[in-house]
Amino acid sequence: MVKHEELEGYVSQIHSAEQSPADIFVQAIEHLEPSELSLLLEALPIDERCQRWMQIPEELKAQVLVGMRYQARDVVISFLSSESLNMLLTGLDAESLIELSDNLTDDLINTAFRSLSLKEKELYRDASRFDPTAIGRYVDHQIITVPPNSKLKDVMLAIRRSGVEFIDHIYVVDRLGMYIGLLNLSYIFSETDEKTFIRGMIDSQVQAVKADTLLMEAADELEHSGLDSLPVVDEYNRLVGRITQRTALWIQKEALESRLMAQAGLKESADLFVPVWRGASSRAVWLGINLLTAFLASWTIGLFESVLSQVVALAVLMPVVASMGGISGTQTLTLIIRGIATGQVTFANALALAKQELGIAVINGVGWSVLIAVITYYWFGSLVIGVTIAIAVLLNIVIAALSGVYIPVVLDRLKIDPALSGAVILTTVTDVFGFLTFLGLGTLWLV
Amino acid sequence: MVKHEELEGYVSQIHSAEQSPADIFVQAIEHLEPSELSLLLEALPIDERCQRWMQIPEELKAQVLVGMRYQARDVVISFLSSESLNMLLTGLDAESLIELSDNLTDDLINTAFRSLSLKEKELYRDASRFDPTAIGRYVDHQIITVPPNSKLKDVMLAIRRSGVEFIDHIYVVDRLGMYIGLLNLSYIFSETDEKTFIRGMIDSQVQAVKADTLLMEAADELEHSGLDSLPVVDEYNRLVGRITQRTALWIQKEALESRLMAQAGLKESADLFVPVWRGASSRAVWLGINLLTAFLASWTIGLFESVLSQVVALAVLMPVVASMGGISGTQTLTLIIRGIATGQVTFANALALAKQELGIAVINGVGWSVLIAVITYYWFGSLVIGVTIAIAVLLNIVIAALSGVYIPVVLDRLKIDPALSGAVILTTVTDVFGFLTFLGLGTLWLV
Repeated sequence: MVKHEELEGYVSQIHSAEQSPADIFVQAIEHLEPSELSLLLEALPIDERCQRWMQIPEELKAQVLVGMRYQARDVVISFLSSESLNMLLTGLDAESLIELSDNLTDDLINTAFRSLSLKEKELYRDASRFDPTAIGRYVDHQIITVPPNSKLKDVMLAIRRSGVEFIDHIYVVDRLGMYIGLLNLSYIFSETDEKTFIRGMIDSQVQAVKADTLLMEAADELEHSGLDSLPVVDEYNRLVGRITQRTALWIQKEALESRLMAQAGLKESADLFVPVWRGASSRAVWLGINLLTAFLASWTIGLFESVLSQVVALAVLMPVVASMGGISGTQTLTLIIRGIATGQVTFANALALAKQELGIAVINGVGWSVLIAVITYYWFGSLVIGVTIAIAVLLNIVIAALSGVYIPVVLDRLKIDPALSGAVILTTVTDVFGFLTFLGLGTLWLV
Repeated sequence: MVKHEELEGYVSQIHSAEQSPADIFVQAIEHLEPSELSLLLEALPIDERCQRWMQIPEELKAQVLVGMRYQARDVVISFLSSESLNMLLTGLDAESLIELSDNLTDDLINTAFRSLSLKEKELYRDASRFDPTAIGRYVDHQIITVPPNSKLKDVMLAIRRSGVEFIDHIYVVDRLGMYIGLLNLSYIFSETDEKTFIRGMIDSQVQAVKADTLLMEAADELEHSGLDSLPVVDEYNRLVGRITQRTALWIQKEALESRLMAQAGLKESADLFVPVWRGASSRAVWLGINLLTAFLASWTIGLFESVLSQVVALAVLMPVVASMGGISGTQTLTLIIRGIATGQVTFANALALAKQELGIAVINGVGWSVLIAVITYYWFGSLVIGVTIAIAVLLNIVIAALSGVYIPVVLDRLKIDPALSGAVILTTVTDVFGFLTFLGLGTLWLV
């Protein structure tokens, strides 16, 4: 995997106890960017994290806290005295307050809000109108707007006054703040006469993103637009800000990380170090669900107690049947879930995909089944057991392929996240079906 | 999951056979961006994909092909007649040729190279000097450079001539093309006298990224810099281009997708529809590895044939022991692999993490073990079997926690990707250890 030498170096040094952690952290503050300090703090056990937090200069604290994941932030916030919490909150800007608001009680949000400047209060109110899942809440307010009757020199003046660092477009809005179109920066540079009216240069082809668009959809719109930013408008077509590639990156990273974590029943916000009771309870539900499915598999096996007591080889070989189904099904499932996430897999092409996966399943199923039969024959000296397991494995791989396609597609239709529950359901199907065919055939042929 | 209504609509319509796919695709070409057409083509079975490909206007073909994943591209390229392939290749720009070069034979690359313009040939040579894993190969060449003795009006002229759309910095390079520093666009706008020399405005604090930096490291550097782009220099400090947030987004997406796919033994480049033989062979190795581990589990069970034939309940309950260890271990593993990917987990804090995970494991282990013991007692009416499974589950959850921390950390040290092999090794450990303790204790207490 990728090396992050600097960050890893500080993580290692703080844990190595050769030097005092406080001294090392002083160097870290000097050499790392605030977002790296957030990562470093997350990598420390709770006590250590809170001790090092106190070393962070006041002016960086808000930024470092915002850079941490939800759970890690919570740990720090709950450690703070009300005095230092107040100090931190009264120094926030609107954007940080929006980010932290999930971690704060209403009282604390009010405290922080009261200390915002008038301009920041307005930005906060604008953003907090929108849902935490809507792009409107996270738009970049660093935009430059001009009225449609401006001349080039007005635009230059607006740019100069704005202090905005990353400019690709200047937005044209009417008196009510409604979005009309945009000016490309390159047009502005290509025109040398300052007295030219901009009206002729306005590009009104670029569609603004609606502020209530879901985060991932907004990120996708930006990606497919081929532009570096898109304007965002509210329900009255008023320009509220823009979405940049930087925001899109943050959205995509969080979505993909959520998918990775969901597969293990974890949240994206999960922290490396939390109070153990909290950590245990956040994982307990997932274990409980999986325990249920394990008992279901056990119950299936229990139906065949008589054959198992007579032919112990069947008990010995059960993991092979379950594993081949589970693993091949998970391959299909993973491919399909990605397809659903990109909009490439729908109910309509599920049939075509099922055929494709069935073809692959039959080829691999036949190949591996024959090998498994041969190994089993030599191990237990029984041709019947060899044939039994071969058929069970083949059938299980076939069922796994179909389940791998249809389970996520149906879950998605039912608006259940297939990344979270797809694998549990799939392996339950392959376990139960695998044991049923294997032990069922065993009962028929071996008793 | 997120909806991509337009794309999903076309995927559905083409498969629904109410209208001819060709007619629907005409509309898709009109309404979708090229990158969405790439996704749409990937979502079609091979024959359909090749038929629809021929409808794409010549001038879009290169862009659509570049937007597809490696395997899907291969399918299209192998379908093309040498004539149409030649036509496609002679229309490429340097950037697309770099992207496609993995899919092309040397002969084809040469054909495409010969038809590049002089300027594009130079860009291609510049990029192809670097490894496919190095940022130098994928830098954005849309940069504006000026010499350090320029006046503001020279800068304005350079901007005007460049036609670059997204400008945040103007780079200052010496006569040999060596990177000296950059000018912020906002400085340029803030200075109104065109005759001012830029020397005083040059920011030489921004560190350039080395062109041989690994993709993910370069993306991380950009992310932590807080800037919208960073200059990239070669080994002689010559400016070769810049890395933008857009490139960083592409890198991060690919890295996270790779991690997701690797867990199922798949490549990021895997296609929904490939010739089934090719699909089957690309998945066979993973099934083979997992078959080996399944046989290892079987062999472990085989050591206890005598107790199994006497106490069938043990065979029935085996999945519970294996599942609780596997699931809880996977939770730890997932958290740790993410930590390794962000540079937060190293060998140095593995001990602290192991303690943390051990605490969580003991809490959940004791809780669930007691419940499992009670259920088992009522099911089989045997206190000894209840106690046996409780102890086996508890121990397995504890071992799973330690394995979940140390397996990925050690793999990472050995430079083996823990996302690919971590879960296989972990579940092998929990299966084998779980069966050993459960059946071992069963032999001691029940025979």
